[in-house]
Amino acid sequence: MDFTGKQKEGMIPLSELNSLGKAAKSAAQKLAVLDTNTKNTALLAMADALVDNADFIISENTKDLNGGRASGMSESLLDRLALSIERIAAMADGIRQIVALPDPIGEVLHMTKRPNGLKIGKVRVPLGVIAIIYEARPNVTADAAALCLKAGNAVILRGGKEAINSNAAIESVMMSAAIAAGMPDGCMSLVKDTTRESATALMRMNEYVDVIIPRGGAGLIRAVVENATVPAIETGTGNCHIYVDKHADLAMAAEIVINAKTSRPSVCNAAEKLLVHKDIADKFLPEILPQLASAGVEIRGGECVRAIYPSVTPVTDDDWKCEYLDLVIAVRIVENFDTAIAHINEHGSKHSEAIVTRDYASSQKFLDEVDAAAVYVNASTRFTDGFEFGFGAEIGISTQKMHARGPMGLNELTTVKYVVYGSGQVR
Amino acid sequence: MDFTGKQKEGMIPLSELNSLGKAAKSAAQKLAVLDTNTKNTALLAMADALVDNADFIISENTKDLNGGRASGMSESLLDRLALSIERIAAMADGIRQIVALPDPIGEVLHMTKRPNGLKIGKVRVPLGVIAIIYEARPNVTADAAALCLKAGNAVILRGGKEAINSNAAIESVMMSAAIAAGMPDGCMSLVKDTTRESATALMRMNEYVDVIIPRGGAGLIRAVVENATVPAIETGTGNCHIYVDKHADLAMAAEIVINAKTSRPSVCNAAEKLLVHKDIADKFLPEILPQLASAGVEIRGGECVRAIYPSVTPVTDDDWKCEYLDLVIAVRIVENFDTAIAHINEHGSKHSEAIVTRDYASSQKFLDEVDAAAVYVNASTRFTDGFEFGFGAEIGISTQKMHARGPMGLNELTTVKYVVYGSGQVR
Repeated sequence: MDFTGKQKEGMIPLSELNSLGKAAKSAAQKLAVLDTNTKNTALLAMADALVDNADFIISENTKDLNGGRASGMSESLLDRLALSIERIAAMADGIRQIVALPDPIGEVLHMTKRPNGLKIGKVRVPLGVIAIIYEARPNVTADAAALCLKAGNAVILRGGKEAINSNAAIESVMMSAAIAAGMPDGCMSLVKDTTRESATALMRMNEYVDVIIPRGGAGLIRAVVENATVPAIETGTGNCHIYVDKHADLAMAAEIVINAKTSRPSVCNAAEKLLVHKDIADKFLPEILPQLASAGVEIRGGECVRAIYPSVTPVTDDDWKCEYLDLVIAVRIVENFDTAIAHINEHGSKHSEAIVTRDYASSQKFLDEVDAAAVYVNASTRFTDGFEFGFGAEIGISTQKMHARGPMGLNELTTVKYVVYGSGQVR
Repeated sequence: MDFTGKQKEGMIPLSELNSLGKAAKSAAQKLAVLDTNTKNTALLAMADALVDNADFIISENTKDLNGGRASGMSESLLDRLALSIERIAAMADGIRQIVALPDPIGEVLHMTKRPNGLKIGKVRVPLGVIAIIYEARPNVTADAAALCLKAGNAVILRGGKEAINSNAAIESVMMSAAIAAGMPDGCMSLVKDTTRESATALMRMNEYVDVIIPRGGAGLIRAVVENATVPAIETGTGNCHIYVDKHADLAMAAEIVINAKTSRPSVCNAAEKLLVHKDIADKFLPEILPQLASAGVEIRGGECVRAIYPSVTPVTDDDWKCEYLDLVIAVRIVENFDTAIAHINEHGSKHSEAIVTRDYASSQKFLDEVDAAAVYVNASTRFTDGFEFGFGAEIGISTQKMHARGPMGLNELTTVKYVVYGSGQVR
């Protein structure tokens, strides 16, 4: 999908979108007061329906795969697009895990009695209508819908054209099961129009959509930031650093660097950069760099790094801000602790940043001064994840500061309202 | 100011803004770790400096007042613009009240130990750089800066051209005192360029600005929603309703309606609409409408209202969404409870909504089903306010659902970060 253009002006309202929006808004009012049992029963029915209709979903998925092959889609993208009995069972299990999570709605976060006798409570309520714009993987259709519905929100899904048949099959199967189990019409819908215009129109549908969440690459995120008038939550770009302090346990540092870089290089919490204090560079780099290289990692660095380890691709200025999502790492030897922090705060994407150190003061200073969603001492950045943080499922990882930061679970799909119990108070 | 146009494309970066932005970002990193005592000492010095330099501020304010008179500014706007010794003392007192509030930064909201031994804490941190765009009242310069600084944020202020000399005087006095007391350069700045272009550029300065908050009329809010690429918090539009249920205590209802409509009609938490259940309309309207009329309120309504009380201006469809901010009220007789809720959810601005009732079930249903920042039973909507809610000062009232909803105090000027204490964990 090409999301890179700007086109705020002159949008024509799309009638398909408007009717989905209207239905979603009406459904959201009913979902906001739907009891937990009905929501959970419906979600379980949706999970079962996916398994029961796996053949249909797979046959629709085959159309997308054939289309992908015909248009020259890469093997790795075809793999992300492909559905099987096992993958559908995994989607269903994901929904059942969401059922098992506590319902966030209705929680009273605090309540106070004011001097005038007013009781003022802050209560967790759904956001309303959430729109999700995503790219190739059809499992997002099931995940995202289940999370939004559990938190009492209606959801409008806008997947990519590569997966349209798969997404439509998943949506129709889930939606029928949801309605039969007592969820309101319009609680979940898929935008069938996969043009860039429909994505842009959705980003600007303030009348019906409360929040928009893009899940995908940097081009999509940028298009949302640029074009959305609906409040958006940016997700997912991770240019993560590991800083190996002069006081580091070097064996621990090596284990963390190898894990953060190589355990799953295509994800946003993988490390992309290694900063090493100059006092330990001579000792640490000759140990870690061959290990990385033998794991297939391309190492980029400047003269100082090359002086220690010759098999280094020259680093360019563009590298420092780059999220490789691949077996590549750029290495810098830093003069001191403050240089490391300044480098991270300048070049990082504010996702996940780690220090390896034995020094107490350095650990505290790193946690205090590094500006990121998650800051680590002596652990791999790979833990920034809803499951690993104990939230259950996640809808994405927010790299912005408003509303939600870091892994977004059910709580992050809610807002609050103040309820005020009076007995005739006037001001 | 004319904020109504759209001009996302072709903005030229303004050099004044860029240097303010850069300085603010650098200051924000220092403010984030500044101790509470230094922040409070600096804020007290800023308050004292306002009082000590009152003559200078008043002489600069006189230039704005002369300019306003020359350009035909209304008496009420001139009054909002005017500063006096007393008003400057009140600004200083407002800052001292902010000093007395607890510092929100560093609070650990929760911390858990995961099965793998990782300790994961959620800590309150500043947002970073906050830009505030506001209109005529120069006291916002002092209020907003003090709130942002107390919460560890740098602040860029962009006031209206009508108050530019007053704002510049307040800013220079406060900034000098802040720096002398240990706050970093760039912690507070005022955009001297008051063209529409500077406002739009500020809304799109994602590199330096973390959040933008408009404080002003509907035109300004709309311009921000339309043009901002920086995450924004919408504030302030209040089309608030009082619904008098058939089970209401009518004496209480009358007192609440009079208070909510007439105690301060120009503010966003004033009531603009009165919905009355048909079963009590014959009894209640002949009682309340003459009281409103004698308080100078223009009453708008349809045929049914006029049948009960003849001195009614005909209501139009446009009335129902309108925020009058004046001594006007539109009255509707509703068929039943559900019609009232549907009317509020369709036409309200999601600010503050109240029911007057003695019926338990109706009170609960209203609190559950009305979608607004604050929902009231048996109290005036006028209480939606940071002071009344017990937050101390407020920076505005959010009418959006993301990040903050309702009165925004110091906590709403913060975000969180996850701090993760490991001992070598890898995944």
